[in-house]
This record gives sequence, structure tokens and C-alpha cells, in this order.
Amino acid sequence: MSEKRAVILLSGGLDSATVLAQAQAEGYACYSLSFDYGQRHRSELAAAERVAQQLAVVEHKVITLNLNGIGGSALTDNTIAVPQTPSEGIPITYVPARNTVFLSLALGWAEVLGARDIFIGVNAVDYSGYPDCRPEFIEAFERMANLATKAGVEGLGFRIRAPLQAMSKAEIVQAGLRHGLDYGLTVSCYQADEHGRACGKCDSCRLRAEGFVGAGVADPTQYF
Amino acid sequence: MSEKRAVILLSGGLDSATVLAQAQAEGYACYSLSFDYGQRHRSELAAAERVAQQLAVVEHKVITLNLNGIGGSALTDNTIAVPQTPSEGIPITYVPARNTVFLSLALGWAEVLGARDIFIGVNAVDYSGYPDCRPEFIEAFERMANLATKAGVEGLGFRIRAPLQAMSKAEIVQAGLRHGLDYGLTVSCYQADEHGRACGKCDSCRLRAEGFVGAGVADPTQYF
Repeated sequence: MSEKRAVILLSGGLDSATVLAQAQAEGYACYSLSFDYGQRHRSELAAAERVAQQLAVVEHKVITLNLNGIGGSALTDNTIAVPQTPSEGIPITYVPARNTVFLSLALGWAEVLGARDIFIGVNAVDYSGYPDCRPEFIEAFERMANLATKAGVEGLGFRIRAPLQAMSKAEIVQAGLRHGLDYGLTVSCYQADEHGRACGKCDSCRLRAEGFVGAGVADPTQYF
Repeated sequence: MSEKRAVILLSGGLDSATVLAQAQAEGYACYSLSFDYGQRHRSELAAAERVAQQLAVVEHKVITLNLNGIGGSALTDNTIAVPQTPSEGIPITYVPARNTVFLSLALGWAEVLGARDIFIGVNAVDYSGYPDCRPEFIEAFERMANLATKAGVEGLGFRIRAPLQAMSKAEIVQAGLRHGLDYGLTVSCYQADEHGRACGKCDSCRLRAEGFVGAGVADPTQYF
């Protein structure tokens, strides 16, 4: 195939929407992938669909996966509250092995599509301290992916692209705006309501709000 | 916790049942994990439950996952036939990134359980040539897992155990029989019927049958 295909992990939040806009700008035929994994903040799935539609991806897929059968996180276990203040170390909103699981499924789809690039919006600057957002994790995943797959073995090689890795939240917002992204479509809050309105208190809301302030632009987020 | 916990990937086939028996024999509190991923051979899920019950695991979990939304394999795509004769290279029964996805979910559960060992029944001797059964893949996954997780970062460390890696099918059968495993409970066929009866023709049936012959024991498999 002559077109350059990419799979983009699209959560519906600010970071992954920016990554999708960037992949589009680089000329990729984009296939976006979201997960219905029993997350509290289900309105992010609606946000992902809005963003995928607005940016006219080739295909948007939602894979259902009952991670709440596994538990262990405030994001998937309703018996654990989402904290309102930043914590020391790795927070309770960490979902065990989440990016590993998501990248694995993206890898499977990429192999079927003949896509070589998988984009993920992880960021190691203004982030929540999740281990699976660090560059050393992304590199180890890429290495493993090229041993795991038929395409990898045949030497075609997958690349895990994390273009936001070293950017501040303000820089991410500025990049998205340059690509014409409407951040009003996105939802970042860990406990957004069914209309996509944000709490303004959780870690994710705090980082997002600081991003708009840092970028010197109006925050389009609706708060409840 | 004082008990030694392990997560065991249990497909319901001969190999993974042997691995579970071995983990039990090593004194692990065993948590078995199966996937309902739209596979043709759904009677393997019933086999996994029988084996888990017979071996009295602490908990048996089935995660639903629509891999057939991804396609690309004779095992998940009904429009692709299961071959009746061995093929050159990586066969069409290869499911893109399957072991990567399964190990990732096992990793998430292991982290929640506080388990440090994840057992998988891959084998690089009498196997179908899948890239994600090779030792170099298992090692790369383990390395990635220890960068991906809170437990890995905190230095507790996960081990991916693949005890069948270097064993022939006959040796696997002999090991299982030493642990008292009833292979009549297991289903290996890629297109077993709803009673768990096997075709006797696919790659998986062929390897299994050769294992019983090699071990010099009666084959308990029911064929249709």
C-alpha cells in the first residue's frame, strides 16, 4: 500500500487529541483507537468520537475490555475515591498496566492494517507520575513489539511515537492550536459528568487548566 | 501477604494446563486467566474452566475482549479458513499480538493481586512458529513489564515464567502426567466442536497427537 498509516491511541483528552492532530499534519492516514474499559469518566469516550469525527480519521474503533474486573485503581474501581489533591509518588488513579494493554491492542490492529507507527500521547513533564508514561517504558515496549510480531520479525519494524514526551502542557496546547484543534471537544477530567463537564479539582483538571494558563489562551473547558 | 501468588494464562489447551499443574506443584496460590476473544474454538473456554476447577485454583477469571474487531487471523476471522496442512513461515492462525495482549492483562491483574510471577505455556520446540512464543520475546516482555508498572518501579519485579519453553510436546505430556493432570479435560483443536471434540487435522491437533505418541501414552482426545 502506498499510503502511510498510523494507529493513534485516542482517549478523548487534551494530549491524545493533540497527538492525532499532529499525526494528521504529518500526512498519516489515521486510525484512532479508544477503549471502553469501565472507566469512571465515560464521557471521554464521547469526546474521543467527537475528536475523531472532527479530524476525519479513516476509522475510529472502540474496543470493550472489562478492566474493572481487575480493579486496583480509582479510575476503574467505584469503591476507591478520586483524590482532590496531588499525592506523593504514584497516585491511586494509576490503572495497572493500562498503557501496556492499550499499546498491545494498538499493536495488533497496526499489524493487521499494515501500519508501522503507533502514536500515544504520554508525557513525562506535566504528568501524574505514572511509570508507563516514561521514555524508558516506551522504548522497552517498542523493542518488545518488534520481537512479538510477524511484521517485526520480517524486519518491517514498528515505531512507538510519543511526540509529547518532552513537552510541557502549555507547549502541547500551543501545538494543538497551531493545528487548528478545538480543545472544547476534549474531556480530561477523571470524573467528568455525562455532558463532559469537568470537576476542576482532580489532578488531570489541574494539569489541563495550568496548560491553558501557561499557553496564554482562554480555557474552553466547561466545569460543573 | 505471606502466600506466594501467581497468575497463570490458561487457554484450556494441553500446554497451559501443564503449566498450571506445575505452578501448583511449586506451591503457588494460583490465579488463572482466560480470554473470551471471539476465538473459533470457544469450547477451550469450557476446558479452561474444567481444568481450573479440577486443580482448585484460588480464582479463575475470564476477560472479554473483542479481538475479532481487529481481525487478521483464521482463529478470530470467520472468513479465513483454518489450514489442514502445515505451512511455511508464520501461519494464518497467528493472532496479531495475542500473547502481548494476554500477558499485558495478566500483568495488570498480577499487580493488583501482589503476584510477582506470571506463567505462560509458550513453547519454542514443537510449536507453530508464532513470533510471540520465542524466548527473546518473553525476555523483552519481562523487561518492559518492570518498567511499565508501579511494582516494577518500586523494585519488586515481575517474572514471566515460561517453563515449557525448551520442552518437546512429549516431555510436556510426561510432566503433566507426573503432576496427575487429566488431559481429557483439555482442548487444543483450533476448530473443536461444542462438546470439545477435535478435528484431528489442524496444526494444533497434529502437535498434540504427536506428543502423546512421543510420551508413549494413550491419547485421551475425543475426535469428531
